[in-house]
Amino acid sequence: MTALVGHLINGEVRSDAARTQDVFNPATGAATRQVALAGKDTVEEAIAAAEAAFPAWRNTPPLKRARIMFRFKELLEQHSEEICRMIGEEHGKISHDAAGELQRGIENVEYACGAPQLLKGEHSKNVGPDIDSWSEFQPLGVVAGITPFNFPAMVPLWMYPMALVCGNCFVLKPSERDPSSVLFIAQLLQEAGLPDGVLNVVNGDKEAVDTLLTDERIKAVSFVGSTPIAEYIYSTANAHGKRCQALGGAKNHAIIMPDADMDNAVNQLLGAAFGSSGERCMALSVAVAVGDQAADALIEKMQTAMQGLKVGAYSDSSNDFGPVITGAHRDKVNGYITSAVEQGATLVVDGRNPEVAGHEDGFFVGGTLIDRVTPEMTSYQEEIFGPVLQVVRVNSMQEAMALIDDHEYGNGTCIFTRDGEAARYFSDNIQVGMVGINVPLPVPVAYHSFGGWKRSLFGDLHAYGPDAVRFYTKRKTITQRWPSAGVREGASFAFPS
Amino acid sequence: MTALVGHLINGEVRSDAARTQDVFNPATGAATRQVALAGKDTVEEAIAAAEAAFPAWRNTPPLKRARIMFRFKELLEQHSEEICRMIGEEHGKISHDAAGELQRGIENVEYACGAPQLLKGEHSKNVGPDIDSWSEFQPLGVVAGITPFNFPAMVPLWMYPMALVCGNCFVLKPSERDPSSVLFIAQLLQEAGLPDGVLNVVNGDKEAVDTLLTDERIKAVSFVGSTPIAEYIYSTANAHGKRCQALGGAKNHAIIMPDADMDNAVNQLLGAAFGSSGERCMALSVAVAVGDQAADALIEKMQTAMQGLKVGAYSDSSNDFGPVITGAHRDKVNGYITSAVEQGATLVVDGRNPEVAGHEDGFFVGGTLIDRVTPEMTSYQEEIFGPVLQVVRVNSMQEAMALIDDHEYGNGTCIFTRDGEAARYFSDNIQVGMVGINVPLPVPVAYHSFGGWKRSLFGDLHAYGPDAVRFYTKRKTITQRWPSAGVREGASFAFPS
Amino acid sequence: MTALVGHLINGEVRSDAARTQDVFNPATGAATRQVALAGKDTVEEAIAAAEAAFPAWRNTPPLKRARIMFRFKELLEQHSEEICRMIGEEHGKISHDAAGELQRGIENVEYACGAPQLLKGEHSKNVGPDIDSWSEFQPLGVVAGITPFNFPAMVPLWMYPMALVCGNCFVLKPSERDPSSVLFIAQLLQEAGLPDGVLNVVNGDKEAVDTLLTDERIKAVSFVGSTPIAEYIYSTANAHGKRCQALGGAKNHAIIMPDADMDNAVNQLLGAAFGSSGERCMALSVAVAVGDQAADALIEKMQTAMQGLKVGAYSDSSNDFGPVITGAHRDKVNGYITSAVEQGATLVVDGRNPEVAGHEDGFFVGGTLIDRVTPEMTSYQEEIFGPVLQVVRVNSMQEAMALIDDHEYGNGTCIFTRDGEAARYFSDNIQVGMVGINVPLPVPVAYHSFGGWKRSLFGDLHAYGPDAVRFYTKRKTITQRWPSAGVREGASFAFPS
Amino acid sequence: MTALVGHLINGEVRSDAARTQDVFNPATGAATRQVALAGKDTVEEAIAAAEAAFPAWRNTPPLKRARIMFRFKELLEQHSEEICRMIGEEHGKISHDAAGELQRGIENVEYACGAPQLLKGEHSKNVGPDIDSWSEFQPLGVVAGITPFNFPAMVPLWMYPMALVCGNCFVLKPSERDPSSVLFIAQLLQEAGLPDGVLNVVNGDKEAVDTLLTDERIKAVSFVGSTPIAEYIYSTANAHGKRCQALGGAKNHAIIMPDADMDNAVNQLLGAAFGSSGERCMALSVAVAVGDQAADALIEKMQTAMQGLKVGAYSDSSNDFGPVITGAHRDKVNGYITSAVEQGATLVVDGRNPEVAGHEDGFFVGGTLIDRVTPEMTSYQEEIFGPVLQVVRVNSMQEAMALIDDHEYGNGTCIFTRDGEAARYFSDNIQVGMVGINVPLPVPVAYHSFGGWKRSLFGDLHAYGPDAVRFYTKRKTITQRWPSAGVREGASFAFPS
Repeated sequence: MTALVGHLINGEVRSDAARTQDVFNPATGAATRQVALAGKDTVEEAIAAAEAAFPAWRNTPPLKRARIMFRFKELLEQHSEEICRMIGEEHGKISHDAAGELQRGIENVEYACGAPQLLKGEHSKNVGPDIDSWSEFQPLGVVAGITPFNFPAMVPLWMYPMALVCGNCFVLKPSERDPSSVLFIAQLLQEAGLPDGVLNVVNGDKEAVDTLLTDERIKAVSFVGSTPIAEYIYSTANAHGKRCQALGGAKNHAIIMPDADMDNAVNQLLGAAFGSSGERCMALSVAVAVGDQAADALIEKMQTAMQGLKVGAYSDSSNDFGPVITGAHRDKVNGYITSAVEQGATLVVDGRNPEVAGHEDGFFVGGTLIDRVTPEMTSYQEEIFGPVLQVVRVNSMQEAMALIDDHEYGNGTCIFTRDGEAARYFSDNIQVGMVGINVPLPVPVAYHSFGGWKRSLFGDLHAYGPDAVRFYTKRKTITQRWPSAGVREGASFAFPS
Repeated sequence: MTALVGHLINGEVRSDAARTQDVFNPATGAATRQVALAGKDTVEEAIAAAEAAFPAWRNTPPLKRARIMFRFKELLEQHSEEICRMIGEEHGKISHDAAGELQRGIENVEYACGAPQLLKGEHSKNVGPDIDSWSEFQPLGVVAGITPFNFPAMVPLWMYPMALVCGNCFVLKPSERDPSSVLFIAQLLQEAGLPDGVLNVVNGDKEAVDTLLTDERIKAVSFVGSTPIAEYIYSTANAHGKRCQALGGAKNHAIIMPDADMDNAVNQLLGAAFGSSGERCMALSVAVAVGDQAADALIEKMQTAMQGLKVGAYSDSSNDFGPVITGAHRDKVNGYITSAVEQGATLVVDGRNPEVAGHEDGFFVGGTLIDRVTPEMTSYQEEIFGPVLQVVRVNSMQEAMALIDDHEYGNGTCIFTRDGEAARYFSDNIQVGMVGINVPLPVPVAYHSFGGWKRSLFGDLHAYGPDAVRFYTKRKTITQRWPSAGVREGASFAFPS
Repeated sequence: MTALVGHLINGEVRSDAARTQDVFNPATGAATRQVALAGKDTVEEAIAAAEAAFPAWRNTPPLKRARIMFRFKELLEQHSEEICRMIGEEHGKISHDAAGELQRGIENVEYACGAPQLLKGEHSKNVGPDIDSWSEFQPLGVVAGITPFNFPAMVPLWMYPMALVCGNCFVLKPSERDPSSVLFIAQLLQEAGLPDGVLNVVNGDKEAVDTLLTDERIKAVSFVGSTPIAEYIYSTANAHGKRCQALGGAKNHAIIMPDADMDNAVNQLLGAAFGSSGERCMALSVAVAVGDQAADALIEKMQTAMQGLKVGAYSDSSNDFGPVITGAHRDKVNGYITSAVEQGATLVVDGRNPEVAGHEDGFFVGGTLIDRVTPEMTSYQEEIFGPVLQVVRVNSMQEAMALIDDHEYGNGTCIFTRDGEAARYFSDNIQVGMVGINVPLPVPVAYHSFGGWKRSLFGDLHAYGPDAVRFYTKRKTITQRWPSAGVREGASFAFPS
Repeated sequence: MTALVGHLINGEVRSDAARTQDVFNPATGAATRQVALAGKDTVEEAIAAAEAAFPAWRNTPPLKRARIMFRFKELLEQHSEEICRMIGEEHGKISHDAAGELQRGIENVEYACGAPQLLKGEHSKNVGPDIDSWSEFQPLGVVAGITPFNFPAMVPLWMYPMALVCGNCFVLKPSERDPSSVLFIAQLLQEAGLPDGVLNVVNGDKEAVDTLLTDERIKAVSFVGSTPIAEYIYSTANAHGKRCQALGGAKNHAIIMPDADMDNAVNQLLGAAFGSSGERCMALSVAVAVGDQAADALIEKMQTAMQGLKVGAYSDSSNDFGPVITGAHRDKVNGYITSAVEQGATLVVDGRNPEVAGHEDGFFVGGTLIDRVTPEMTSYQEEIFGPVLQVVRVNSMQEAMALIDDHEYGNGTCIFTRDGEAARYFSDNIQVGMVGINVPLPVPVAYHSFGGWKRSLFGDLHAYGPDAVRFYTKRKTITQRWPSAGVREGASFAFPS
């Protein structure tokens, strides 16, 4: 008997009985729960609840809005084990990895606690004689978020804490693959004191998404997912008069320079390539070795290091990573590995069909290392989203950078070097939005903003951090002059007696 | 024999002989020049020139880019009479009005001179142990601007000075109605030291526009014009992967409160409603009087004041305003006046078919005042873009604000009052992007940003000012850690000698 | 048998047995505790502990420092009743007033939670070709705070939360009159995870103060107290090479304009003049009525309203305010009242020697209202620091403003009016640092900064808020160029083999 | 017959006939002009002129103040040759060096042109329900600058452009050694449109300085000079209630790491050590070589490079540097060289008593290189302010850093390395305010701020750049609530007609 994961609308947990879908434990392959799929009506109810809550929430001082986030942070920390367990059960990531994800989410809540500072406008005295002008950053109204399965706790927390402290109300449509932690976290925010209707969660599929994209009461949409969907979301939202930021896919390269500290590089790559089974848009999936000497050293050290990798269920914290999200996705990842071999690459470590004792029906792929990958290969061109590290060999840093710049995506990248000049040249010129120097997962901290370039992001403004304030508010500029000195000079002394 | 106004491509003035169009003097009705209309090939040449200039311009230090703007400002001031004459000849606005426009444009050049300050990124030490992170705001590449006839000098200067100092190259497609000053000003920027190809100007029509909107080398488009075109520009640019900000139409209301300083209000309205023949997106075209006492006083004082209005050719600086841009537009404005009367409004001052001695064929409309206008009338719902002030009578401030909020547009608005509380309530709650308190044309100064709400602006970011920096750059976030202390601790003392 | 309040040094509560002083309950007049008075040696131990803790604390990422403040906030909220009781027992303020004070202190802790955002430096790419420059705001080292009796919880929290998150270590010398809550709160911060030695508290008198002012390991001193002491602190600290901000006395005037909402004004003045027995540097102690009509109305309504004032012990929350801090101070306040009468003022409500049943030995002064006060009177020129509101009558706003500008102090001021122009003129021109418009206690919120002008503050930078970041850090500017492209271009491929 | 250099007071050039002093051409040793020395009365006249100009200047919109700076920049550029000649004649620096100085000064004028942006305050909506709060940065009033001989054009331009655009009036007391360019430049600013009295220049000596330091109308003092005088200025100004920033001496070290690009380092050091005869507070006067291999290479390459150095008069632009400022100073520099030799150092290149054909009476010292200098030597401990580079040999980077940190001064420093980690460790930990990485003169650009640490600067805020805004303004925080909705809700419809 499986439980049903419902919606949060106007402060109440609700279910839309009409349609449901199975939620799986990817480590066992078994359906363990069901999730309600909201129809158009249910989504519209959520929007209506948000719209009704807006006038009072908009007028709540930013400091009071922020204080709810302070309390929210406390509750997230108190309930972290419970949240990580839910993530593990439905997403499959190991508890330490889920804890890391949650911590990154909490960072965004912490940043949102600074709302009073972040919402300051600019005030100009005397733009003309006795004329003042200032800007205010006012909330948009009701805004929506559509989030992916791979970070069920973190990505929603990139969005609604900042949207809410800016004075907006929110409708969240999370992934239907791992909905439990999302709903639980939203309830914690209610418990922290958020008024009913300010945050609503609707589970669903395309029907729910399209309702959000076309309803005129929704003023903005934030999305994280794959590039084709991101493009659809962006164009549809724009066509319906909404502002939109849609984050898509990635193919993140690390350049290994000949002067790199190789032990450090290998150590960093291990986590960056295989952590969370590579199901991260910032996963480091391509290593570009400059010179065969560096490439050979990298392959040798990597191969050795990968012998220690442990794949298994979320509940055993000695595991390094868990299964991928579905059986279909496992097959797709395996297919990329096979295609690379067929297209001429060298399979150094083969992670297909690993043995995971006691979890024979789980959706596992082991850590995989492929050498001599070339840009023409399918596995190079597309995002694999699995625990696969591919190595491309080049003869110069320029060649390595050209590879990266020619790729469709421009999310993250990294260089391993000791040399100040190489690092500066790379970070200056590379056509990628998030750049690491000896940092393989250069995810910006919550007080900076997250965003890729090229087809990794559609929109002007990046996610979370300073850009989130601008995305979730509209600028109002006020110009003021007081023309009469009557009261001051006494003309109206006989004013209302 | 009329002159031909050409293009500026890669530092040279050029003509596209294939197609041309007449340019009129609206005060006489005579065609005085022709303008070349660029075909797709010519536009693509301009784009190619910009793209070729980009790498060197991008690497030019912001301070050096800014210094060209300092010199540009000097040249604009030196040549202001010449520029105002060109504007007068083709647009028709009186020289003092053109001078005001130019001054507002120069303000934006002055703001662009502050590029080194404006382009600073945020630097965070120790985002983790010995890890630093910072943001850089890098240029987009080649960007485009499409600008309207009503401010031939100012609106282009809202765009390219900021775009250029941010490191972008630019292709400008100005209005084909009054192209001369645009080309002249662009040449001054060349003279100021701008490298060839960094700014290009192409005159043209829909073919030129569509080439800019679809060419993949163009990374962003700024537009100012009417709402239907703005919407087309925005959706087309977005569909072709560009960021876009498109500013459209307006219907700007002033609320006249019972406690207003009425003489001041009337004096302000005069210029705000009739200046530049009302052909301004910030023109104050609707006065909403709260209470009949205020309305009667307003009508009476306005009627008296309007007797002094003088309409005529640009060259006589004692004129208050000039003709509208074309004969067709004159007929359209007259039609709105007629329709208002037909739909029940009271025509207090009728400006149709004014006598302007010696300019019988000019496209003139005189100052017009219409009382008892209601929201159902065509003349209320649409943007007239002529020297017509309509008065709507309401019974309360709430009713006045509801009128404004219900209108399709949300560009500018104003309240006349002496009361701090009324001003604060109004500016807080009104759904309009630019708000004046006793300031009828609340155009933000160049160091704030310009933008309406609702269907007056498509896009996230406003024009010029601080938002322009964010619009014309993409954020790059760099995270850096140096893993090895080898050199510092002496391991590599035996460095290559 | 009374308890002894000791010091907190290097994480441990300690007592300096050599000298002690009584701590009184001002509502009963009885000594209830003793406080240890630190000698030079003890203070130096505290400084040494802070200096030893500095290197590790300085290198702790700002985010981690901020997280201790998040936890500190939770603990302050959990223990608020206990803290308010301690304040009540030793300072005498009523529990609701102590709760307000604590809340204001917590606001500063909340602001300090934003340290990662607040500590961002400015980064400039290409200040010259391939040269970058950025600023860092580094901690000063060991800094000190010296705080007054009137806000035992709040004023220390103005200082050390911001000082600590900026990376400094701290030695606090609180008032010896009401030391218990200070020590208790400091221990909560230890409990929140602050490493030993980062915050130290030493109780003491002039010996302790002078040690802090002259020890060269102390890099900065923040002080709040009276003007003569502030001036001494400032000059002594500066002479010993420290940066210093020293906040002194005040005489805060409210202008009552003829158009003011008089009921609102009276209501506001009541709390602002008598709250906390007037022992606030922001207390509103002078009302300047413009015109006799306003003055008469003010006196009449004020007299009526004051009949409801209730004075008594902290523990009865129906009381409006409590005793003053000492018997000597009570006598001094009474003396000011007497002197005003003797010098010709009209005593409207006499608060000297009120009957407070059951607290006959308490240090009570009742709410006092004096009319027709003039600038020559002693009670006008000096800070009374008691529950005394004096009314000065003037004939114009200009006269009212001249009074304020001529006074030695320039801490806070306020105007009561409905008129936008009067408010703007007043706030623009008045020579006072904190200005209220219909706000009688214009204490800036924690995300702005607190500071008076003229002899109310010695130093460049104000307390807390944005200025605190600049006060508690020193700017370092780094300029960087990497001269050799050796590694990038492959010259050193044969680097470490 | 020599000319007399006078004062600029209230827009007029004036002389104080009572006392004068000779001004020398240091390349010839001849007195060429005289400078008037202002007595107390004259200085007080200047202060009075500034005070009289203040009310109108304070109310001039920042944009208009900035526009005078735009025009000032133009005039400085037009007259640059004339200015450089004046500098050359009186200071002795070669024309290319004077041009560089002037350019740096102009950078500060350019930064001041951004005043409207820089003066923006922070605006917070709803700090409480319907309560807003914002900050304004208001001018101080009349402020003073006291500047040194070594940068007669640049250092005054660090000060008054920013002070003026912030709304202050200014009294400048420049060096009496080279006063001509200062007066000339100030007159250009008058010509640019500055109202009379806003900037005043008084030449003088201690009497003038002390008048400025003690007159209560002066609200702030900026000083650049030697440390003992800086300390006197700072304490005296503070004791008289002024804010003060006083920049003093320096001893700037460069660390030469074993992995440095040695040719680049030598090339950089040449200009940094000997440019302007070493009479710069940012001169690089100590090279700390890490390891004897680096030291030997440095000495050898440096010795070779120094053979090409050319010393002579300002007018021959092929000269590298000119004379020092006076004969007495020449003797002092020579004395330091002699003392180093006597105390055991190795004199590699001896610049004492160089032959400069045709300028036998000029105050010349040639480029001097001293090896094996140790911290105990007088020449190491004190600031030489001459063309002398001393080399200290150490065994590790830690040792090099300890040297720097132990020195009394902390103005500038530099490291030569290719290694990212070494650069980051150095810039993070070194106790110096301005740090170069492969940049030997890390003078911050005008849009950052200039300031040393330790005994190189007295005061909280650095010179020019962002800190200058804070130094030259006082913060005012306004909190506003409008209590009555009377007008809005119609209570006062019957307003005074």
